[in-house]
Amino acid sequence: MKIVVLTKGLKPKHRELIEKTSEKAGAEVCFAESENAFPSGFEDPDIIYGFGIETARTSKNLKWLCVPSAGVDYLMKPGSFANEDCILTNSAGAYGVSIAEHIIAVTLMMMRCLTEFHSETLQKTWGQPRAQKSLKDCRITVLGTGDIGSCFAKRAAAFEPESITGINRSGTCSEPAFDKVVKIGELENILPHTDLLVMSLPSTSETENILSRRRIGLLPEGAYIVNVGRGTAIDEDALADALDSGRIAGAALDVFRTEPLHFDSRLWNTKNLLITPHVAGNLTLDHTTDRNVEMFCEDLLNYAGGLKMKHVVDRKRGY
Amino acid sequence: MKIVVLTKGLKPKHRELIEKTSEKAGAEVCFAESENAFPSGFEDPDIIYGFGIETARTSKNLKWLCVPSAGVDYLMKPGSFANEDCILTNSAGAYGVSIAEHIIAVTLMMMRCLTEFHSETLQKTWGQPRAQKSLKDCRITVLGTGDIGSCFAKRAAAFEPESITGINRSGTCSEPAFDKVVKIGELENILPHTDLLVMSLPSTSETENILSRRRIGLLPEGAYIVNVGRGTAIDEDALADALDSGRIAGAALDVFRTEPLHFDSRLWNTKNLLITPHVAGNLTLDHTTDRNVEMFCEDLLNYAGGLKMKHVVDRKRGY
Repeated sequence: MKIVVLTKGLKPKHRELIEKTSEKAGAEVCFAESENAFPSGFEDPDIIYGFGIETARTSKNLKWLCVPSAGVDYLMKPGSFANEDCILTNSAGAYGVSIAEHIIAVTLMMMRCLTEFHSETLQKTWGQPRAQKSLKDCRITVLGTGDIGSCFAKRAAAFEPESITGINRSGTCSEPAFDKVVKIGELENILPHTDLLVMSLPSTSETENILSRRRIGLLPEGAYIVNVGRGTAIDEDALADALDSGRIAGAALDVFRTEPLHFDSRLWNTKNLLITPHVAGNLTLDHTTDRNVEMFCEDLLNYAGGLKMKHVVDRKRGY
Repeated sequence: MKIVVLTKGLKPKHRELIEKTSEKAGAEVCFAESENAFPSGFEDPDIIYGFGIETARTSKNLKWLCVPSAGVDYLMKPGSFANEDCILTNSAGAYGVSIAEHIIAVTLMMMRCLTEFHSETLQKTWGQPRAQKSLKDCRITVLGTGDIGSCFAKRAAAFEPESITGINRSGTCSEPAFDKVVKIGELENILPHTDLLVMSLPSTSETENILSRRRIGLLPEGAYIVNVGRGTAIDEDALADALDSGRIAGAALDVFRTEPLHFDSRLWNTKNLLITPHVAGNLTLDHTTDRNVEMFCEDLLNYAGGLKMKHVVDRKRGY
């Protein structure tokens, strides 16, 4: 059993853990820089931990691909796997802490006008006080209650919001920080009572354009929107209109329909739009990498032992 | 009994509450724009709610001054009160929610490099990932465990830090979010084990320069500092040196020895220094003004009824 690790940003302790676990699993492991540079003897691996997209598309021998991302939309196209039985696991569960901190940070930056103060500071200007908003007494709606939405809800609860409502397919969630969790069919009833809408959804056919122009119109005046899932979930043009008109008080987008964002995108000039370049949950936070590697190693032992793997993606659902 | 209200930013609901409470207290009340424009009949009031600094200095009739700030250092000079028996109350307790949100926001902005991403966005530049830090597993030290420090600790605890240590004069605090609270004499033992130092101290002779050059040197490499108390607590030049050298990873200052910050201050150009213009806790957040007015009205009834007032400043301690 041969494993190629392509994941970037690993520290010595991560490599050691992978090596030890591989030995336990009776597998040989190597670390490669890219899919074009597999070391000798590892040209046709059984397992890849990393973005082995091209190998998955061409190798009939690949039995398991573990990607270090939570979203796997880029592997859902027909023909993505030469071996139709290839197992796909993702790393959902590693990003909650990092992305939850991002959501809290950008929300408070918007509510407290901190981007404006920062812009003024760059000009050596001592700004004047501005009207601020608060998470206290805020009605928060979280669209998508997985690891990310739950980690966020847990942190947000400490800020004494009026309510935290989760929305998902089942209408249930084990995270106690949610005051209530409702089914996705309730979305349009909840939006008019939402001061802060947090979106942490995978990209699937069901989530495509889920925040449509009409639904943006259902949010109350002065609402805030944060999207950390996938850019396809929002009608970007409608959002830009709502922001430019001032009806929506602010939005923070970390994900976009096209990434990197085009130089001539109107979003760069949209009022009260906080843009970050898809950095809420990459592997630049120690904890994120730790969890990512732990999750792969856990499932490597499960795989070797013929046990049920924990992070398998349901390719029909797309997450 | 005549009351003049000078406090800015009151909404109709706040004025109504003050009027109703004054009636209950058997007092006449008026609202004035400044100390130079007291309405006829209110030229020499018994009570001022607002920054009645000049009146306090000159009026022997003023019996109670309630200032809408938490800090009262500007009233501690000899000669500040013509009537030596004038009661001074402050509004400590109104700012905790607002300032705690500020501390969380600027801490995460620094740890997650959000000011750098924002600067790039202003240039329409799609930035590259940067190494991030996290509140998770962070060793937090809170210097000053009053309303502000406690509100912060409560919120910070939800981010799964390694520890939250409070430091104050007594070594005790009722807020359960602190893992431990130690006396100020322990400061130098705690600093070497601090990843994030939050300072929320009043300006007194004891807190002057409490974070000296030597003590900044006791913090571990890569530590962060947030100051929301008073600028006098920090050796600003030593902090700038530590930031420019890269030994301290970042600092967020909302208060300074001189405000507004001089145009030619070196702090404007100091590396990894996030400057905000003393806006963490002003009355621009609805909740802050609500609490501020409630606290004055509460003590107005106490004063009128001859009961113990809740927010009296000990002029010897200075807070």
